[in-house]
Amino acid sequence: MLLDRIQGPEDVKRLSGEELLQLVEELRSEIIRVTARTGGHLASSLGAVELIVALHRVFHSPKDRVLFDVGHQAYAHKLLTGRRDRFETLRQEGGIAGFTKVSESPHDAITVGHASTSLANALGMALARDVRGEDHKIVVVIGDGALTGGMALAALNKIGELGKDMLIILNDNEMSISPNVGALNRYFRSLQVQRWLQDAEERGKRVLEKISPRLYELADRAKEAAKLLVHQENPFYAWRIRYVGPVDGHDLKGLIYLLDHLKDLKGPTLLHIVTKKGHGYKLAEEDPVKWHGVGPFDPKAPPKSGKGYTWSLAFGDALIELAEKDERIFAITPAMREGSGLTEYAERFPDRYVDVGIAEDVAVTTGAGLALAGMRPVVAIYSTFLQRAVDQVIHDVAIENLNVIFAIDRAGLVGADGPTHHGVFDLAILRAVPNLKILAPKDAAELRAMLKAALEVGGPVAIRYPRAKVAPVAPGTWPEIAWGTWEVLKEGSEVMILAFGKTLEYALSAAGEDPRVGVVNARFIKPLDEAMLERLVREGKKILTVEDHQLAGGFGSAVLEALEKMGLGAEVKRLGLPDRFTEQGKIESLHEKAGIGPEGIRRALAEWGLALAPTGRTA
Amino acid sequence: MLLDRIQGPEDVKRLSGEELLQLVEELRSEIIRVTARTGGHLASSLGAVELIVALHRVFHSPKDRVLFDVGHQAYAHKLLTGRRDRFETLRQEGGIAGFTKVSESPHDAITVGHASTSLANALGMALARDVRGEDHKIVVVIGDGALTGGMALAALNKIGELGKDMLIILNDNEMSISPNVGALNRYFRSLQVQRWLQDAEERGKRVLEKISPRLYELADRAKEAAKLLVHQENPFYAWRIRYVGPVDGHDLKGLIYLLDHLKDLKGPTLLHIVTKKGHGYKLAEEDPVKWHGVGPFDPKAPPKSGKGYTWSLAFGDALIELAEKDERIFAITPAMREGSGLTEYAERFPDRYVDVGIAEDVAVTTGAGLALAGMRPVVAIYSTFLQRAVDQVIHDVAIENLNVIFAIDRAGLVGADGPTHHGVFDLAILRAVPNLKILAPKDAAELRAMLKAALEVGGPVAIRYPRAKVAPVAPGTWPEIAWGTWEVLKEGSEVMILAFGKTLEYALSAAGEDPRVGVVNARFIKPLDEAMLERLVREGKKILTVEDHQLAGGFGSAVLEALEKMGLGAEVKRLGLPDRFTEQGKIESLHEKAGIGPEGIRRALAEWGLALAPTGRTA
Repeated sequence: MLLDRIQGPEDVKRLSGEELLQLVEELRSEIIRVTARTGGHLASSLGAVELIVALHRVFHSPKDRVLFDVGHQAYAHKLLTGRRDRFETLRQEGGIAGFTKVSESPHDAITVGHASTSLANALGMALARDVRGEDHKIVVVIGDGALTGGMALAALNKIGELGKDMLIILNDNEMSISPNVGALNRYFRSLQVQRWLQDAEERGKRVLEKISPRLYELADRAKEAAKLLVHQENPFYAWRIRYVGPVDGHDLKGLIYLLDHLKDLKGPTLLHIVTKKGHGYKLAEEDPVKWHGVGPFDPKAPPKSGKGYTWSLAFGDALIELAEKDERIFAITPAMREGSGLTEYAERFPDRYVDVGIAEDVAVTTGAGLALAGMRPVVAIYSTFLQRAVDQVIHDVAIENLNVIFAIDRAGLVGADGPTHHGVFDLAILRAVPNLKILAPKDAAELRAMLKAALEVGGPVAIRYPRAKVAPVAPGTWPEIAWGTWEVLKEGSEVMILAFGKTLEYALSAAGEDPRVGVVNARFIKPLDEAMLERLVREGKKILTVEDHQLAGGFGSAVLEALEKMGLGAEVKRLGLPDRFTEQGKIESLHEKAGIGPEGIRRALAEWGLALAPTGRTA
Repeated sequence: MLLDRIQGPEDVKRLSGEELLQLVEELRSEIIRVTARTGGHLASSLGAVELIVALHRVFHSPKDRVLFDVGHQAYAHKLLTGRRDRFETLRQEGGIAGFTKVSESPHDAITVGHASTSLANALGMALARDVRGEDHKIVVVIGDGALTGGMALAALNKIGELGKDMLIILNDNEMSISPNVGALNRYFRSLQVQRWLQDAEERGKRVLEKISPRLYELADRAKEAAKLLVHQENPFYAWRIRYVGPVDGHDLKGLIYLLDHLKDLKGPTLLHIVTKKGHGYKLAEEDPVKWHGVGPFDPKAPPKSGKGYTWSLAFGDALIELAEKDERIFAITPAMREGSGLTEYAERFPDRYVDVGIAEDVAVTTGAGLALAGMRPVVAIYSTFLQRAVDQVIHDVAIENLNVIFAIDRAGLVGADGPTHHGVFDLAILRAVPNLKILAPKDAAELRAMLKAALEVGGPVAIRYPRAKVAPVAPGTWPEIAWGTWEVLKEGSEVMILAFGKTLEYALSAAGEDPRVGVVNARFIKPLDEAMLERLVREGKKILTVEDHQLAGGFGSAVLEALEKMGLGAEVKRLGLPDRFTEQGKIESLHEKAGIGPEGIRRALAEWGLALAPTGRTA
């Protein structure tokens, strides 16, 4: 295999044109082979193979900085930059990351996972380069979905104003995770349909002459370059960004040719390439949503959609039933329809559903607008992405105590996506926000009870649940829940474990049948069930809190605060995630390492002199 | 006065054309008269008087929803919507807010204070209106600065895609708080210069005919409408937003005429008006930066710039000295050059300074890019605005432990700007973020010591200081600070008060000369000085924490967490802001009400049986 000879980008430069085409095929095979075992962002990475080969052919990483927005399309980049031997460990505990990561390779210019951050990073790098008089190139690869994120647009605005030398490659694959939305995106479509296919040669050459005589000269000779167009009337012109394209992002020779001639242009240039997610792998081309992020799969068959019932689906199903009865229900997602379990809801209630695109801030504040107009919006958002809308929760929703429900999915550690995606800050952030209530259900029935109660109680309510499977419940199941109450699942004579969500099962497992150790479903994180807490303490029980969240400022801290407020001294231990970022790995394994799994709980109990037998048996 | 007869918007509709012009003058006088006493956002509000009169002439608030972005330009709106009798209380404790506020009036469509939120709110309201089949109008007034914020652009993208009926008025006053930045803004300028003044009549009428035959007909007759232009090649076209303008935003008759004919257009329309901040008040027109937000002033004289030395200036002066010695220093502001004390720095080091516009997320991640390139960026940001970049702090800076310093100004209660602007969540949010350190200086010398130490220690460091005066220090003052240490300012035999920043002076005042009560400058919030904490507790001291921050998740919680971790039982009381939003008012008065002023501290001590005499005397 050619790939065996590629130790780094310089080796790509030694290959012949024929060999480059072979390299593309080998990369694609390797990506399919490994992700079939590890799972991963297959479709995006397959779509970017030619682009990445062309980039490493033309540019000189790491001197030149190549920034991949989101960083999930960069598997070929990892394979070409000295990580082939470790590629089998992709997304595994201790292995290489599913995104680009600065600490993993000097060729990874940014550590990333969330969308739309590349341009602001590139702006910073360009400012640094220019003040120091350096001359390396900065190349940004950004998808059409990520480019419509507000942060990317605002950064583009500044880059255009300053006229920083930079090549921005708009990798237009016509969809982010959910089918793409937004007017700009439709505009990209119209550019393609109307312009690309029409008599481009003359116009293209005319504008080429203006921006680069050399490029013009070559374009005059080379057929491929005739596709090139510069639209001065497109929106990038208003941003003072030179626009080139759209061109075929799977035409390797054309890409290399273009990059080679665009690389020395002064000022910001945007090259619009069109690619197909999953390119070269029929199954993925046909259903790129399903193949966006996949678990391990059989390369010959479509990935099974969902392995069992999840919290996301439980939420989506509950919301459908609520929306049937209550016309004020309105669901909002920031480009996460499938992930949030809203696919069926969106089909059933298209008028009461909006996907605002990769714009979490807009999602939350659109919820505020709906609530101000008397609707009952439900913002479905992953915990990690809610971090992108903190001010909107505070400023737009909580100050006026608006009726917005936040369905916070993927709360706690999420596994293979690693530190950029773990949802482990939401409680610390949200607990401080007045008017906001925070709940965490133990099962699908309780999720329903909480959604119903949230609608009744009103104001902003956050309901958090993990990335995990959950047992389905029968349609029509709408149990009641007493607001603000915890639930004793098991009495204990010496210690009560306060846990919620994912850690509840660990607590039950650790406690086993031991009569000394009880377990409480601490499902209300704000308000706490202070009455129960007080009772437990007055009964002389020790309190052990366990949470799938950073220790600093989390649920355990809320318990300490409540005890301080009540002036109650108590023996309390808190288990949670330590003060460092948690790497990728299997969720249960990460939990044990962090000391919040059954073993960690048993160790904590042992420190109090309560030696417990292994799971399920009494000491 | 005509104003005496205006009880609500309907009264505006009864006035004659002459009377409307008089009303504009009266509004302007009233705004100047009252803000001279109360302080406030004078320049923006003066610039929007004609627009607001025209809006209430044409639209029917509150049925029609009029959303003011930021909400600081809406004084005339308050005067016309039943709040004239209370206008004297503007920005005073218990009085009306300096921004629009839903709970204050049905005519205030959104509660606001931060920029760029109006369009997402309007999107939500339009979704609600349309799903219910209602037919009221939605009008958004947004400045050119706020429109270049990412959240506004992303919302615009969705509004354009959905084609929602909505009138967006771009109030282009050529500057936000700092002179405006960004390529889009330059584009707006070019629109004006190139197009407005040239032969507009023919082109304007041609496009008018397309969008509204009735408007065309009128335009054919009315000279004013001839200014009207629709640029299909401008960026709003790509967003599928109909663009009309630019027109003179101080031409009341023209505005009423235009609004009257634009109001029934289907789909989103953007009307670009050009106004002058401070219009009609010479002093403010001449220096709108100084008159953006002013304290009480003499209407006949320019406002005094700064009454004494502030924390902001202390930071700016320190940064200048650091930048002189260290070429890696790079300052970043999100449109807050003056407010952050960076005016002189920006003049001295234009190559190591960037104002990214109203885009806090871009500010933080530009810092990440600079740090990745080896620079030592300092992001100067208000605490309340850092809420808009939480994910960028976590995802772009902290995961890779990048060398970014956050100079967090206006931490704690900020006074007259009220709940949208209080900086009272930063500790809860930032404490949970691994790798991040959090410091709070007691004076300007300690601020310098902390900046220096932050550069030495590396990684992300947040230094928070209040909106307050501080004594200046001599240039060249660079004291050392032992990392992670607190400082005993006064020994106490029974209680030690742990305080920092603003609350330190309250603690000293409360403790007075009483030998039983000591005071510690708890200047390291993360990491805490656990050694000192342990020593104090082992000495049997009671601990009283006092912070200008929400109680939930703040400094006091950090102390409780540390004691739990060390397994130390201690008598602890925490004072901080209660779990509700704090209204506007004088800072010291708000602090006393919240129980964190000297009286509140004395009450807390009294609960421990330590009756203290009034300030400065021993019990």
